[in-house]
Amino acid sequence: MAFKPNLPLLAFLLLSLFFLSTTLALSLATKDPELKQCKQQCRHQERFDKQQRQQCEQKCEEYSREKQQREREEQQGREGHCNREDPQQQCEKCQRQCREQEQGQHDERQCEKRCEERRIEQEREQGRGREGGDNPRWEGSEEEEEQGNTPYVYRDEHFETRIKTQEGKVRILERFSKRSELLRGIENYRVAILEANPNTFVLPHHCDAEGVFFVVKGRGTISMVCQDNSETFNLQRGDILRVRAGTTIYLTNKDNHEKLMIAKLLQHVSSTGRYQEFFGTGGENPESFYRAFSMEVLEAAFNSPREKIERLFGQQTKGAIVKASQEQIRALSRHAQGGGGHFPFGGESKGPFNLLKKRPTDSNRHGQLYEVNTNECKELEELNLAVSFANITRGSMLGPFYCSKATKVAVVVEGTGYFEMACPHMSSGQQGRQEGGGSQRQEGGAHYQKVSARLSPGVVYVVPAGHPVVAVASGDQNLQILCFDINAKDNEKYHLAGKKNIMKKLEKEAQELSFSIPAREVEEILNKQDETFFFPGPHQRQEGGRAYA
Amino acid sequence: MAFKPNLPLLAFLLLSLFFLSTTLALSLATKDPELKQCKQQCRHQERFDKQQRQQCEQKCEEYSREKQQREREEQQGREGHCNREDPQQQCEKCQRQCREQEQGQHDERQCEKRCEERRIEQEREQGRGREGGDNPRWEGSEEEEEQGNTPYVYRDEHFETRIKTQEGKVRILERFSKRSELLRGIENYRVAILEANPNTFVLPHHCDAEGVFFVVKGRGTISMVCQDNSETFNLQRGDILRVRAGTTIYLTNKDNHEKLMIAKLLQHVSSTGRYQEFFGTGGENPESFYRAFSMEVLEAAFNSPREKIERLFGQQTKGAIVKASQEQIRALSRHAQGGGGHFPFGGESKGPFNLLKKRPTDSNRHGQLYEVNTNECKELEELNLAVSFANITRGSMLGPFYCSKATKVAVVVEGTGYFEMACPHMSSGQQGRQEGGGSQRQEGGAHYQKVSARLSPGVVYVVPAGHPVVAVASGDQNLQILCFDINAKDNEKYHLAGKKNIMKKLEKEAQELSFSIPAREVEEILNKQDETFFFPGPHQRQEGGRAYA
Amino acid sequence: MAFKPNLPLLAFLLLSLFFLSTTLALSLATKDPELKQCKQQCRHQERFDKQQRQQCEQKCEEYSREKQQREREEQQGREGHCNREDPQQQCEKCQRQCREQEQGQHDERQCEKRCEERRIEQEREQGRGREGGDNPRWEGSEEEEEQGNTPYVYRDEHFETRIKTQEGKVRILERFSKRSELLRGIENYRVAILEANPNTFVLPHHCDAEGVFFVVKGRGTISMVCQDNSETFNLQRGDILRVRAGTTIYLTNKDNHEKLMIAKLLQHVSSTGRYQEFFGTGGENPESFYRAFSMEVLEAAFNSPREKIERLFGQQTKGAIVKASQEQIRALSRHAQGGGGHFPFGGESKGPFNLLKKRPTDSNRHGQLYEVNTNECKELEELNLAVSFANITRGSMLGPFYCSKATKVAVVVEGTGYFEMACPHMSSGQQGRQEGGGSQRQEGGAHYQKVSARLSPGVVYVVPAGHPVVAVASGDQNLQILCFDINAKDNEKYHLAGKKNIMKKLEKEAQELSFSIPAREVEEILNKQDETFFFPGPHQRQEGGRAYA
Ligand SMILES: [Cu+2]
Ligand SMILES: [Cu+2]
Ligand SMILES: [Cu+2]
Repeated sequence: MAFKPNLPLLAFLLLSLFFLSTTLALSLATKDPELKQCKQQCRHQERFDKQQRQQCEQKCEEYSREKQQREREEQQGREGHCNREDPQQQCEKCQRQCREQEQGQHDERQCEKRCEERRIEQEREQGRGREGGDNPRWEGSEEEEEQGNTPYVYRDEHFETRIKTQEGKVRILERFSKRSELLRGIENYRVAILEANPNTFVLPHHCDAEGVFFVVKGRGTISMVCQDNSETFNLQRGDILRVRAGTTIYLTNKDNHEKLMIAKLLQHVSSTGRYQEFFGTGGENPESFYRAFSMEVLEAAFNSPREKIERLFGQQTKGAIVKASQEQIRALSRHAQGGGGHFPFGGESKGPFNLLKKRPTDSNRHGQLYEVNTNECKELEELNLAVSFANITRGSMLGPFYCSKATKVAVVVEGTGYFEMACPHMSSGQQGRQEGGGSQRQEGGAHYQKVSARLSPGVVYVVPAGHPVVAVASGDQNLQILCFDINAKDNEKYHLAGKKNIMKKLEKEAQELSFSIPAREVEEILNKQDETFFFPGPHQRQEGGRAYA
Repeated sequence: MAFKPNLPLLAFLLLSLFFLSTTLALSLATKDPELKQCKQQCRHQERFDKQQRQQCEQKCEEYSREKQQREREEQQGREGHCNREDPQQQCEKCQRQCREQEQGQHDERQCEKRCEERRIEQEREQGRGREGGDNPRWEGSEEEEEQGNTPYVYRDEHFETRIKTQEGKVRILERFSKRSELLRGIENYRVAILEANPNTFVLPHHCDAEGVFFVVKGRGTISMVCQDNSETFNLQRGDILRVRAGTTIYLTNKDNHEKLMIAKLLQHVSSTGRYQEFFGTGGENPESFYRAFSMEVLEAAFNSPREKIERLFGQQTKGAIVKASQEQIRALSRHAQGGGGHFPFGGESKGPFNLLKKRPTDSNRHGQLYEVNTNECKELEELNLAVSFANITRGSMLGPFYCSKATKVAVVVEGTGYFEMACPHMSSGQQGRQEGGGSQRQEGGAHYQKVSARLSPGVVYVVPAGHPVVAVASGDQNLQILCFDINAKDNEKYHLAGKKNIMKKLEKEAQELSFSIPAREVEEILNKQDETFFFPGPHQRQEGGRAYA
Repeated sequence: MAFKPNLPLLAFLLLSLFFLSTTLALSLATKDPELKQCKQQCRHQERFDKQQRQQCEQKCEEYSREKQQREREEQQGREGHCNREDPQQQCEKCQRQCREQEQGQHDERQCEKRCEERRIEQEREQGRGREGGDNPRWEGSEEEEEQGNTPYVYRDEHFETRIKTQEGKVRILERFSKRSELLRGIENYRVAILEANPNTFVLPHHCDAEGVFFVVKGRGTISMVCQDNSETFNLQRGDILRVRAGTTIYLTNKDNHEKLMIAKLLQHVSSTGRYQEFFGTGGENPESFYRAFSMEVLEAAFNSPREKIERLFGQQTKGAIVKASQEQIRALSRHAQGGGGHFPFGGESKGPFNLLKKRPTDSNRHGQLYEVNTNECKELEELNLAVSFANITRGSMLGPFYCSKATKVAVVVEGTGYFEMACPHMSSGQQGRQEGGGSQRQEGGAHYQKVSARLSPGVVYVVPAGHPVVAVASGDQNLQILCFDINAKDNEKYHLAGKKNIMKKLEKEAQELSFSIPAREVEEILNKQDETFFFPGPHQRQEGGRAYA
């Protein structure tokens, strides 16, 4: 029986496969129920005739088989994740309901998006990861990195909540050297995340650290009070701003609906090796640091009696992030200077600069990379820091590549996926606590361990200099990653695949000696990939070069 | 009965109160004996009539009451200081004797000064401090910092004596990271104090550290021997001098009466993380480093027989600081270049620069601040160091303020008083040994612990970046503090009270949201203090703005 | 009976003494057998008549006596070295055989050289050292440094073999902070040694460290692949080359007979605090880091099926250093740019610069010093590094001197001898593990411990800033030492003997006060040595200024 093109069927199948691929790629390997669900979806399509239903079910089986091998591999070392409470499964159910209720309607995508958001929220709260390798070693080696033990990946449970009120919170990542000596080199750097509800005010404070802020989402203002001047700037998604140590700042979220979310990289200036906020204003909560002084000193400093002092520093009890009225926010935004756009920031004004309005340094249909480095920006040069933002198209991937000098601290801003990194420092049973020079096969040089983790918003991962790395977006959503590059001066990215693969620069004889196969063969393989930096991801390629998206 | 102005009585009362205030401010709270003494003094004044004596005694009681509250607070956590051996009480007795014996005469002040000096000496030897808070928390909290446990304050017992001869000594402060990880960031810096008797010579030596010297008192010369040249400079109080690592130096105290005292900040250059003097000259004591070489090597190096070598490195047994004759000192001073005065030092000549001849950056009747920073002086810029000297008028105070980037290492040079600092890193039971991110009230942000210590000559304290701090001079003497600011490049001082208080720069709405009281009220309080940086101290204010002094 | 000049006898005696001096200077103090051997050699000379034999034997006894004192000193603390397996003794036997078999012929020296090489090889494999002092303290003190415990000296057993194939190896020195906290300041620096057999190829790899390479011996090429360009340079003895972190390099040894040997100083850039090679090419051995990625990622990255990937990264199994054919080497050398010579390197081209073609900064018949410092070379300035190469004539010595700021990492390249260093940080029973501020005699300042070690090719020793040091070449061979100076910016060498001895710059009165003897006497001794920096060594002087050599 000939198969006639049937557009609704095709559309459904694609959609179905799209979600299924997500399901299978990310969820745990309870294969039977998945397949059953897939087939059920086929049967529930009332527009399908019998033949269409059969084809639908066939596709389900096909895709299921295709994924089986990876599933099996994924399952290894990921016990405990596969249960009925799994956010991914709840998400699928949620999305299924969306489709069943609102198919064909505009709201469907909105509904599904809400499902996905709920899932991500749940996953973050459960703090579960995908540490542990995808695949067993080709040779069947057992050296898989143990789950959750890598010092390179950080999730919700590795953050400490510094501030939490009804209206927002500030979370700070543990010191990079806490779990392992491997990252002692960046222990003076910390990552912090500020979230403030719509229409709120973050009380004035200063920090004993240099800060680089990146606005992940929302619209707000920031005021920076220096000893000699004081400025207020608008903030929007993509803005980068340097906040110098000691500068007293306060912020507003002036949006009526969206949270204001800021990711910060902080560099200690203090001898204490710790990072601390200092609230001068406030009272009991946030406590004002003035309250640490004796009353007689305060009376003298303010030339005021005890009652006045107690009044000034005694009334604030609502915490460091408080609700603000529309009038207050309007007043506070009154003098704000236009949101980021100028480049480089840090010229005359010390205001924010919008990274996403900059021309991408790499761009194709598989992704875009926005970068600002130490040469372009004095403010960052002083900190020996670069900032980049990668938008990886769903189903695509970034890399493999390595940085010559910089250590990347990556913060996942949106989307899901995973990353893989080759690390000679880790090996079975020694993860990150070893003091020696790395794992070593007798007389065989380094062994490279795969470090891999599932990515979702809020995950932080670290890529030390020289380490080859890849990031892959899942099939359902663009993966957006913010990177702070520490030690960025004179850093260079080296491409390990595609048009600019440095392996292509080896002389013919070097290739032959290196790979022990004819140079002709080496070249043939190296020349197959036409793209640069952003490539079609694993699933796209398997479908013969055609992207799902 | 009307009170007629009686000038001698007034004078006596003022004097009496002056010393009493010292007594009560600094001594421990054995109130009854103090009051008794005060009254006794009244009764012993033979020029007083009965009425005057009564008034005198009344004043004693008044003042005593006035001080009681603070006394009670001071007493907490300071057990063991209140005993008959207390230097402060001995000092009072000494001064009383001065007054009784020499009242009205010119020598009286001299006599009292000697008393005070003896007291300071005794206190230093006992190494007792005033660590621990003055006041309980306003809310009656029990979180007072425990005494002597703070890693921010150093006294005599924290110094190690490196060199000690009949003619002088060199003491070096323990590593800042010894007591606590909190100061690991400045562990490459050390403080050392050199004291040499009148008419002495400090033998040539070099150090494996960059040094910045400050002449605390005395008159001398320093010779710096480099490989290619050699210079001698006069030294006087206030001189700052950079001594580069490896430079061989020797010094003379050319004064016939006064000690030469030099405070040094040293920055390791050596991979050893330790600081060490290397004496090339000398013999058995100080040992010459030549003696570590084998005789055959020395014979070859000097092309001389063993007997000559033994003669050269065998005679010196008097230690590193020796008496010198007037002729020798004259000869050694012969080529000395004029004492510091040029600014900036480190221009053509590498000689000393006198900080106290520089125009103060802040000055009013409550104090003066002399500063030299990294922009002004290449020698200091290389070390990322600034130096400042604060002269706080008796009864006055400096601050509150904080530094944006620099960590202050403060050395008390003269006078007594105390400092208070707000520190979010310390909390009850965790002083400085904790590894975590600081004390933290659940979901309430930082808690600021008061760190406080009594100051007297020789005390060293550290103020990390961002930490608000105040220094208060006691009522009887100016408090003089030398500060080395580590990491001084681009450092800014932020004022937390007075005319330039950065809190005044907050917008009205920010003030309201921050303090939870009307902006009008905030402003009213913030505007009460007219001065900048140096303010009337606690006791001055309580007396209605009129200083004791 | 008159002694008539007998040229063959004289020649033999000189030769004999020459080797005997080596024997006695370096070997252990089993004096009797040595003397016996010496006399035996006399008796076995068939050309000698009876008289000549007696004279020969007399000389043996004379020389033996002359050496006795030093022998006794050397013996102390060097138990266990004096046995029949001693490489030195085997070497002598070997050389004796050479002479007996090939006396007078051209090949004799070649033969002896092979003996010596075999000895060095053996010594290195036994990893034996001469740590421990030569001489007891003059005063008979027992404070000799214990053997092998000093953190300043490194031998074969302190290297870790990173790569080892039939064709070569890469060895890396343990972290300097491993044995002692004393060298924590240079723990980011590592020394590595690459050795590759004639006609070999070192596979492409990059490192997470900045590297400075020095070609110790051999002729080869190095290719440096950057993202944007790629260059190949010839390498020869004396070449210095900076290899930036992340640069992919590969090398050839293009000589048909000589090993290529490169000493590297590496400075971590990675946050990991470890040093690691990353092989991109390769397969199973060396493992390619590509193999750490999952197959699906590689398929996507290379846009190639699994079979191709497995082919590319599966064939290389011969390790990181492989044999190359003459044609391959010719092809790889084809585009190589002329070997080092231009100065400074790091100008337009980033190629090597030949240190030994530079004009020596110090030179006399006792040795030559070749230096390149941070001012002369931007590439080194960035790393705050200087490189020097000292060629100390046999029987001569270098120093005593100290560096003001730099810490020297010295690698012995050729020859034998010893060094002595005065260290105030070490004292009996505390070697390098102490946490305190150094050994200290009560009120007597520092005590300087002699740190001493026997030097032979491959030994690495460290001289921290400020530490006086001497290196002495043995009587039979020039001693060649490569030094990397860490923290070299503004470093100055201070001479402690000879014409430029800084002690000569002290004023007369300072000399008198310092040494407690008349200045005239001080001067007399200091002026006896006419040379600068390189001096006749201990034995040369004892022979009345006439060198053995
Ligand atoms: Cu690694
Ligand atoms: Cu603190
Ligand atoms: Cu030492």
